[in-house]
Amino acid sequence: MTKDYNKLAEELHRKHGGKLTTSLRHQGDMGRGELSAYYTPGVGHISMLVAEDQSRLREFTWTKNLVAVISDGSAVLGLGDIGPAASLPVMEGKALLFKYFADLDSVPIVIDCDSTDEIVETIERISLSFGAINLEDFAAPRCFEIENRLKESLSIPVFHDDQHGTAVVVLAALINACKVTGRDMNELKIVVVGIGAAGTATARLIKQFAPGVSIVGTGRDGALSLSDAGLGSEKRQLLTEGVLSDVGSGELAQVMVGADVVIGLSAPGIISPDMVRSMAKDPIIMALSNPVPEIYPEEARAAGAAVICTGRSDFPNQVNNALAFPGIFRGALDNGVAKITDEHKMAAARALADFVPEPCPDKVIPSIFEDGLSAAVAQVIV
Amino acid sequence: MTKDYNKLAEELHRKHGGKLTTSLRHQGDMGRGELSAYYTPGVGHISMLVAEDQSRLREFTWTKNLVAVISDGSAVLGLGDIGPAASLPVMEGKALLFKYFADLDSVPIVIDCDSTDEIVETIERISLSFGAINLEDFAAPRCFEIENRLKESLSIPVFHDDQHGTAVVVLAALINACKVTGRDMNELKIVVVGIGAAGTATARLIKQFAPGVSIVGTGRDGALSLSDAGLGSEKRQLLTEGVLSDVGSGELAQVMVGADVVIGLSAPGIISPDMVRSMAKDPIIMALSNPVPEIYPEEARAAGAAVICTGRSDFPNQVNNALAFPGIFRGALDNGVAKITDEHKMAAARALADFVPEPCPDKVIPSIFEDGLSAAVAQVIV
Repeated sequence: MTKDYNKLAEELHRKHGGKLTTSLRHQGDMGRGELSAYYTPGVGHISMLVAEDQSRLREFTWTKNLVAVISDGSAVLGLGDIGPAASLPVMEGKALLFKYFADLDSVPIVIDCDSTDEIVETIERISLSFGAINLEDFAAPRCFEIENRLKESLSIPVFHDDQHGTAVVVLAALINACKVTGRDMNELKIVVVGIGAAGTATARLIKQFAPGVSIVGTGRDGALSLSDAGLGSEKRQLLTEGVLSDVGSGELAQVMVGADVVIGLSAPGIISPDMVRSMAKDPIIMALSNPVPEIYPEEARAAGAAVICTGRSDFPNQVNNALAFPGIFRGALDNGVAKITDEHKMAAARALADFVPEPCPDKVIPSIFEDGLSAAVAQVIV
Repeated sequence: MTKDYNKLAEELHRKHGGKLTTSLRHQGDMGRGELSAYYTPGVGHISMLVAEDQSRLREFTWTKNLVAVISDGSAVLGLGDIGPAASLPVMEGKALLFKYFADLDSVPIVIDCDSTDEIVETIERISLSFGAINLEDFAAPRCFEIENRLKESLSIPVFHDDQHGTAVVVLAALINACKVTGRDMNELKIVVVGIGAAGTATARLIKQFAPGVSIVGTGRDGALSLSDAGLGSEKRQLLTEGVLSDVGSGELAQVMVGADVVIGLSAPGIISPDMVRSMAKDPIIMALSNPVPEIYPEEARAAGAAVICTGRSDFPNQVNNALAFPGIFRGALDNGVAKITDEHKMAAARALADFVPEPCPDKVIPSIFEDGLSAAVAQVIV
């Protein structure tokens, strides 16, 4: 299937010469009058109005509707550290999604930087050109510092979609999966497999939404624990802050025993049917590795899973960031929100969950193509 | 008149919310198939093709048709050092001109930098995102170093329009003005008033095109001379390289005596009718200070001027950069030109001059609205 998409991708990209183009908001011909208003001498007056009050950039420039999709290409899709040039087609694709799903103007910017400091300062220096910044495909753990520093220094929304977009959609799916399986979220035992950018943000958001949950995080070496001296500082923090429970140690197969939910953000095929069978009754499986999930839906179902989500469009319950980020940015820009907070993310998850009128095992989240979806998310970003 | 444009500018900018928008090259609805080709998983294949051969960015991304208009806002129009935020409406206006006159996609980027090094490194770091770079409104003398360093380090066209766009159009006008007044360009005595970014580039290009010309440059303190110990290094270079003739000293009124051509890139009203009368018979006057020229056309004509150019659209012979830069970038991108050379600029000037079938005193250069203009320039950028 991926092969076919490769061929179509090559055809479409070559035919159109990329995915984006700029257009003029002014329709039709322009004469000297319009040009003298849009450019010199008239535009000088607009510049003077902005010089007096910088917030008027939103009134007089396209930044009101403009998101920069910025990446250094260090952690691209399933491809890894392919660098800025090779990541540009992906970022242009993300910009296409912004336009298609939320009618937001969007410009892909790939940056060639060596250090976190360089990344942060480069984005700061160009940030006046945009209304909001979508950080994309920056590798963990660098991505956490980059986002935090930019949120601190900039007065426009900054949102690392790999972290928070995923977290919002997973939380939305979890809310409805609990309804469907008759669970109280605050009593859930959850295993998050893969504590990278998305896993970290997802664990944090779920814990904030339902403080009673117990979440065990696992990585390549099994359950994360403070007893592991080599643990990175971000992972350590998840444990010391109590976002993750420290169970000492344990392979995935061990920690999954009795769990209500497993959230896989890791690698193809690492969840076995036996592991699913070892979970609590009617378990919730999110196998989000893409395109090959941690376990295929048919196997998980046969092993007793009650609700199964994947990252793929050809199975029910696709956990797709495009459910969240278009509406979140649309709302932030429309409503003048300068910082996207945890409250915004939880509200977005609730809005997504509520968008499914009658949740059932095969439909705990909306499809990205449903009308009014980004608007429903946008209206809670206030 | 400017007042009226101010009002219209405010109306139009507010009504449209800026001047640009992004659009999708793909027309009509998209389903999962197209999205899977434009974004994951199909786009991963495109990324891999680019990773193997970076030049394929031009084949598969919008960079083939994309110009960044980059400024730090240090020397904006007649406004001076207004900074990056206030310069954004101007850069968005420039991007509008790229689209309108050459159907080039264009993104305005304003950068907040403190030093030449920061400016250069910031542009280098984001340069993979674009197909070409139009530097705009960087102050002299910093602009020379910025452009030179970027031309050296980047493999895409870099062009500081304030310098070279002006130089190309002035040269075009001069070629035809010589035809009209029966002059041999190599015998011209020229005075360039104002040796900033545009004056420097204009003097250099004319001297290269017609090495026999004699050019005197004047600044606030009269004729530029090596005898002035306080002269900046760029201006000094113009004299040591023989681009400018060193006449020792002299007020503008003195050096204009007997000159064939005066090119004003300086300040309103500083050329008097008496100065024009002191020039050679049938002198050529380019009074390009905008909106108020060094001398108004009616005064210059009454004082004996044979050909008069200004920067204004309401007089004949408007020297407007928009005659040159759209076609120069169109040609560079279409023809895979990585560096815009002096030969390209001279060819562009010739193409512009040739675009006027029968030059006469009131028409030595085309109007920006003439059909086929940017294409005529583009085809000589090879």
